Amino acid sequence: MNSKPLVYTIDIQATPPSLQDNTGDLDRLKKALFVKEGVQPLVPFKQMVEVAAKFRKAGFRGTAVLVDMPNQPMLVDFLAKSPKIMAAMALDLGTTHLEATLINLLDGTVLARGNQENSQIAFGADILSRIHFAGKDNGLMSLHRAIVATINELAVGLAEKVGEDVADIYALSVSGNTTMVHLLLNLDPFHLCREPYIPLVNSPDVFFARELDLEIHPAAPVWIMPSVGSYFGGDLISGILASGIDDVEETSMLIDVGTNAEVVLGNSQWLIACAGAAGPALEGGVARMGMRAGPGAIEHVEINQDTLQLIYRTIDGSKPRGICGSGIIDLVASFYLCQIIDIRGKFRKKTCPERFVDTEDGLGFVVAAADESESGEPVVLAQVDLDAMMRSKAAMYSILTTLTNQVGVEFADLHKIYVAGAFGRHIDPRQAITLGMLPDLAMETFEPIGNSSLSGAELVLLDRKNRKRCQELINKITYLELNVNQEFMIRFSGSRFIPHTDTSLFPSVPVFD
Amino acid sequence: MNSKPLVYTIDIQATPPSLQDNTGDLDRLKKALFVKEGVQPLVPFKQMVEVAAKFRKAGFRGTAVLVDMPNQPMLVDFLAKSPKIMAAMALDLGTTHLEATLINLLDGTVLARGNQENSQIAFGADILSRIHFAGKDNGLMSLHRAIVATINELAVGLAEKVGEDVADIYALSVSGNTTMVHLLLNLDPFHLCREPYIPLVNSPDVFFARELDLEIHPAAPVWIMPSVGSYFGGDLISGILASGIDDVEETSMLIDVGTNAEVVLGNSQWLIACAGAAGPALEGGVARMGMRAGPGAIEHVEINQDTLQLIYRTIDGSKPRGICGSGIIDLVASFYLCQIIDIRGKFRKKTCPERFVDTEDGLGFVVAAADESESGEPVVLAQVDLDAMMRSKAAMYSILTTLTNQVGVEFADLHKIYVAGAFGRHIDPRQAITLGMLPDLAMETFEPIGNSSLSGAELVLLDRKNRKRCQELINKITYLELNVNQEFMIRFSGSRFIPHTDTSLFPSVPVFD
Repeated sequence: MNSKPLVYTIDIQATPPSLQDNTGDLDRLKKALFVKEGVQPLVPFKQMVEVAAKFRKAGFRGTAVLVDMPNQPMLVDFLAKSPKIMAAMALDLGTTHLEATLINLLDGTVLARGNQENSQIAFGADILSRIHFAGKDNGLMSLHRAIVATINELAVGLAEKVGEDVADIYALSVSGNTTMVHLLLNLDPFHLCREPYIPLVNSPDVFFARELDLEIHPAAPVWIMPSVGSYFGGDLISGILASGIDDVEETSMLIDVGTNAEVVLGNSQWLIACAGAAGPALEGGVARMGMRAGPGAIEHVEINQDTLQLIYRTIDGSKPRGICGSGIIDLVASFYLCQIIDIRGKFRKKTCPERFVDTEDGLGFVVAAADESESGEPVVLAQVDLDAMMRSKAAMYSILTTLTNQVGVEFADLHKIYVAGAFGRHIDPRQAITLGMLPDLAMETFEPIGNSSLSGAELVLLDRKNRKRCQELINKITYLELNVNQEFMIRFSGSRFIPHTDTSLFPSVPVFD
Repeated sequence: MNSKPLVYTIDIQATPPSLQDNTGDLDRLKKALFVKEGVQPLVPFKQMVEVAAKFRKAGFRGTAVLVDMPNQPMLVDFLAKSPKIMAAMALDLGTTHLEATLINLLDGTVLARGNQENSQIAFGADILSRIHFAGKDNGLMSLHRAIVATINELAVGLAEKVGEDVADIYALSVSGNTTMVHLLLNLDPFHLCREPYIPLVNSPDVFFARELDLEIHPAAPVWIMPSVGSYFGGDLISGILASGIDDVEETSMLIDVGTNAEVVLGNSQWLIACAGAAGPALEGGVARMGMRAGPGAIEHVEINQDTLQLIYRTIDGSKPRGICGSGIIDLVASFYLCQIIDIRGKFRKKTCPERFVDTEDGLGFVVAAADESESGEPVVLAQVDLDAMMRSKAAMYSILTTLTNQVGVEFADLHKIYVAGAFGRHIDPRQAITLGMLPDLAMETFEPIGNSSLSGAELVLLDRKNRKRCQELINKITYLELNVNQEFMIRFSGSRFIPHTDTSLFPSVPVFD
């Protein structure tokens, strides 16, 4: 590989000490490294004894383990034999779930994959409740310890899968939203959710695993993907890296829907980004029967326009337990095409009264009957869920138009629209267009890119070029704050119809009177 | 000052955060530093919270505290007001005594001085006994903790003298022999005293005070003066810095007598050094009545060649308690000139039988009678002490000649002979020449330079130029190992007479048959 991983090795054969050459052990190793590769590493204080002792024990020959720090390498370990694997962990630090891969830095291969629920959920389901909890006595520390414990579990699991010790994981890269990164680093998130929404830090410098009580190699570098703002986290920087929109001349867009909808527009010359609360209804956080894309989640729905017969599919083919973002989009698009809802997103019960029930949350549409479902309770979408969905889709489209308008780009000029995450994996862009959620473009414009937060974390482990790109990115991105954006509010109002107040924007979507 | 101290400050006025500028606190501070001075510092993980919080609390203006690390500055603190003092501690880490100064890095002034006995003495009086003790269960840790405690005491004392808190000491530089440095850093000294005498490390990289449990500022950089070998410590590198022999074209010599005699010869082009066991008899470590230069120590002796009347002077004028190195040299030179000893250094009792007593260690010469001394016991120099002195003086001269001969330099070519430490401060070169200990040169060649170990530690605190010089020095110095040097052994035999077997080397010294 020509690339420079975050941790790399150099094989060394040093001359053993003698009366004619009384150089100290550590200085001898450093000299050999300089002679062989021209590197002049620093040795962290707490690694001195171990590195020197291993070097001596190995007969002054073996493999030096170095960290590619920004300005000078760090010498952190010495191995008697040239290793076959230099394992590093890439981590997507999600608010609800953590997802990780174990990568072999020697050849870039994926050794193992794993995921784990975020144990901070015990202290608060979402970002805001955790920020609130962090303000209580010992709250921040509890959240911090919980997430460190979850990462340690995940790391131990990954190491076991490949028959290595957790201490043989030599690096960690972390991609997460700004709040999750603050909680991981034990930094007070107080100002993150208070105007003007300022992080304590955007771009923490690399530090060592031992400083965070992680169980991986104590001198493993921990690389935190930098953020641009409180609502624009390192996970989105990862998305940019993974999509590569910053690397080509053509202008593209990246959409990542999680707790918020985060959108980046740009090319190799410029990047503009914003984030807004378009996510919850799509992530299953709001809808009563909503759920994350997982076993038992209805991910796809079709309603026959003539017979109004409804067909659904769950992710794993099992009995339905709820409905995930893509299922809701399918469903609501079908509602519209079958005129089961009007252009304001309100149920028209008379179209098929037999499918409706009354719920605590008002009128509800039965997607799956009680006898079909996992729980024996029907899977129902209520009017309130529909209203939330309408707000989400309006917010999404408003974000996209506000952003393109800000730089004078037309949707038609876009080379690609990359759609990240579970949302990107499962939605049918056609249905999202019908709702007026995504712009009315050819299907090939839309490209799902999977968990790009994790992919970005993998990329920085593998190459210095990508680590530099991160730093360049955060300096290059213009962040558009929507919370105070008048234009966004006006666009939002115009977008609360299906597909839009201005139907000419969606020529492919049928209009009903 | 144009110089760059190890810790320096930059006054900053940053724009406070707003919705239009949501840069994180720490990144804001870094940006301001870059804009003002072009510096791009790293922030150590454990300082992030404190630096960011202080910056915010001070209203995003105040004084940043930075460490001048080798490749990239470190941002370690933030002060609301521009300080009048940035205190740093320079430390001479002696085997028996620690000596320190508190320096104001803002203007280079000395704020306070202090000294403390090395509490490791409880575990062993000398280097070898401590290395032995370090090999016992928990031995190294006990020695390590003892020296850290001594340094903390000293630091607290210095801070108190200037009305500052110990945590306001922002840097520490340490100059000591290789063993003392190993014990301070909790590094096993096992190989230091075993052939081929290899240190674990010569040149430890800068680290932070908190990593050593020091009570000064937790992120204060600790700069350890590098060593060249087990017997050539950072204290001597300090001596070279302080004497400046590496900085001028003329060839000079530096002599530092402590536990060993350490000698450096060279100029701005080259440096050669060696060390040998010439010290003990001169440091008061061997002679029965020997003592360090301190209160009650006889530092000067004269014997009238006609009357044989003896006059002595103690350092502080108090009653004599013993005799220090310079006193012994005076005494033995006078013995020779008065022919009380022969050229082999053996007492000739018949010259003044009334001054002699029998001791456990053989014949003894009464320097101060019982009724004159502090203890009521006479101060006596025994034949064994004299023998030790003769070995020391022979070793010293042999070291000097072996070294000059190695590079083909004549004593007469030397620009200066710098004599460091208490030895340099108190001895009379005239008497040392009489003994054949120092070469027979004009008095103005010899220049005492005081505690150059401490002076060197001060110099590295004050200027990056000096820190770089240290690294250059250790690469430049050729170390001559005397333990296996045949020439040295031959020269040693020839030097065991007063002034020398070859009296033509000492034209100014009278010869008796």
